[in-house]
Amino acid sequence: MHVIHKGRRRKFRTVSYLRKSNEIVLIEQRLLPHEFRQIRLKTPQKTAKAITDMVVRGAGAIGATAAFGLAQGICAFSGKDLGKLKSHAAKIGHLLKAARPTAVDPMNAVNAMLKELESEKTVAAYRKGAIRLAEAFADEDVEHCSAIGELGNRLIRKDMKILTHCNAGWLAFVDIGSATAPLYAAKRAGKQIHVYCDETRPRCQGASLTAWELAQEGVSHEVIPDNAAGHLMQRGEIDMVITGADRVLGRSGEVTNKIGTYTKAVLANRHGIPFYVAIPLSTIDWELKDGMEIPIEERDESETLGAWGINERGRRSYVRITNQGSHGRNPAFDVTPPELVTGIITPVGIMKPTQLWKKRRQLGWKQDQVSSAS
Amino acid sequence: MHVIHKGRRRKFRTVSYLRKSNEIVLIEQRLLPHEFRQIRLKTPQKTAKAITDMVVRGAGAIGATAAFGLAQGICAFSGKDLGKLKSHAAKIGHLLKAARPTAVDPMNAVNAMLKELESEKTVAAYRKGAIRLAEAFADEDVEHCSAIGELGNRLIRKDMKILTHCNAGWLAFVDIGSATAPLYAAKRAGKQIHVYCDETRPRCQGASLTAWELAQEGVSHEVIPDNAAGHLMQRGEIDMVITGADRVLGRSGEVTNKIGTYTKAVLANRHGIPFYVAIPLSTIDWELKDGMEIPIEERDESETLGAWGINERGRRSYVRITNQGSHGRNPAFDVTPPELVTGIITPVGIMKPTQLWKKRRQLGWKQDQVSSAS
Repeated sequence: MHVIHKGRRRKFRTVSYLRKSNEIVLIEQRLLPHEFRQIRLKTPQKTAKAITDMVVRGAGAIGATAAFGLAQGICAFSGKDLGKLKSHAAKIGHLLKAARPTAVDPMNAVNAMLKELESEKTVAAYRKGAIRLAEAFADEDVEHCSAIGELGNRLIRKDMKILTHCNAGWLAFVDIGSATAPLYAAKRAGKQIHVYCDETRPRCQGASLTAWELAQEGVSHEVIPDNAAGHLMQRGEIDMVITGADRVLGRSGEVTNKIGTYTKAVLANRHGIPFYVAIPLSTIDWELKDGMEIPIEERDESETLGAWGINERGRRSYVRITNQGSHGRNPAFDVTPPELVTGIITPVGIMKPTQLWKKRRQLGWKQDQVSSAS
Repeated sequence: MHVIHKGRRRKFRTVSYLRKSNEIVLIEQRLLPHEFRQIRLKTPQKTAKAITDMVVRGAGAIGATAAFGLAQGICAFSGKDLGKLKSHAAKIGHLLKAARPTAVDPMNAVNAMLKELESEKTVAAYRKGAIRLAEAFADEDVEHCSAIGELGNRLIRKDMKILTHCNAGWLAFVDIGSATAPLYAAKRAGKQIHVYCDETRPRCQGASLTAWELAQEGVSHEVIPDNAAGHLMQRGEIDMVITGADRVLGRSGEVTNKIGTYTKAVLANRHGIPFYVAIPLSTIDWELKDGMEIPIEERDESETLGAWGINERGRRSYVRITNQGSHGRNPAFDVTPPELVTGIITPVGIMKPTQLWKKRRQLGWKQDQVSSAS
């Protein structure tokens, strides 16, 4: 996607790989939206650390970073013994999978690559194969998001006002994003739309990341407090809601996403406003049967009791809002039941959440698949 | 109510008057929750400025401040001519009513006092009368809140978890508060309760003022992001919701309150959780017929795009969350329809919102009444 950088509009991917120098290029997301900077990672150790330190975030983006990190480590191997290369690759894979242990995408990416490379007969072929597979992994992420965009765009009429929650944008994927994909496709198709970005307290991904993305792409938008959507719906100012998801249960159709998503689904339902969830296929969890079984991460209370931003001197700073002595809760996700979801926008079609299981083969379900995690 | 101040638990009112020195004592609310300080105002000009500058806020509190300000101005009059005193009083009244022109409480307080004083025959009687009326006005505010507390307490069972939104606490009244009154009464009655304070973005009155109040009174509580209530309701962690209101329409039963209240009412309704609104009688608007006619104030976008708090050096500071160039909406209130409200807790009884009009005489409706405003 585009970024207005040093006065020029330039194309960027969230994650990319330079073959010649064997470097991985990431956007330093911790500086956004106040500063845009790319960093180059020269070793798989540094790549793993970038995942751990949240330089890069979002399921698709960290999956691709891990895939490139594995290829990077394999290419850095200077020996000639295939057996030694394989054991080196396993070590690098382990390092990358451990970089964010609760995330499933780096694990799936690394495991799939190592399995596929198993049949290679020479060191050179193993290296070439690793690069090819990592690039294919990243390209598939982009293709999936692109397909979501094309399908989602069919739902959007001109002059629509669309609400989104949190950031399921191109920063969370290799490019394009999931919830943002239909918005970008509609803009490209020449439809005038207006997007409301829920602030998404307490981490404010909507106010910081989604608003920044939409500004770069020239999509008309405004940030609203999470409290305001109900009022805007009541006054007829929201025509559609599109969010991403951290995990969608293939068996029950339940949607796990950033805290506050459920609230927006309840409000949309009351007002007869369509509520869509856009996801790549890797977001579907084919194992869990009941959304109440999903463990809801409770994060540190400091996020609830204050806010991060830049101060008047342009420095990143935290302010505490609540008095010392009072405490806070900080559940990070919630679960939306299928009856509140108008449709799931996947790369292979838009369907009711309760149709996922029936269409599981088309959606990439495999009997031996590892469960997707948020 | 109580404040833990300089290591001691002491009683305070939000607004009080010292007869001997003719001074008004206010809590400097702009410093809360990070610093507790009282200020003494020596002239009605300074009292009016404190209202304008939001040293004091909340319908009941600014009404009482204006009433005391009028008495203060009348007592400061050194002449002996009753006619001159009356014209002096009218000027002071005008000054106080203009201090926050959209608020109805200072206007009602000043007009009622001046009308009542009309019949006084001497300068001395006029002065005495002014003090008596201002004190009666403040005491009635406390009595109303106290009655709300006693009635609301009957709805609360031990171990209940209660959600409140924004601050309708004792800081917004002379003492006790409206939405907080049942909580304090339940605590005094020895019931163990736990209160969730909605952060209430963008101005965060729940995270800053309500949490601070509850901490002073020793009521168990936690701040939650506005996004979290739906999830907590879904998991059975909220038993009741109590909020205040800025305006309740006596004819339709619609409730205007801080942005986000409507969302909580929709969620409570879905989960079968009782939703109560606690108000003094002055909050009822007997004129307007339709909530859609209520003008919804759109405040400055800077509140939506950032947050105020104290930084690591303990200084009050603003941080911007959204990138420069993106904009925000900031509607300050919303309207909750009567079918979502279980009951209105008034000083004279708990009733369905649609019963208000039938009981209007009991609720202090008068044919010639000035409309209440938010």
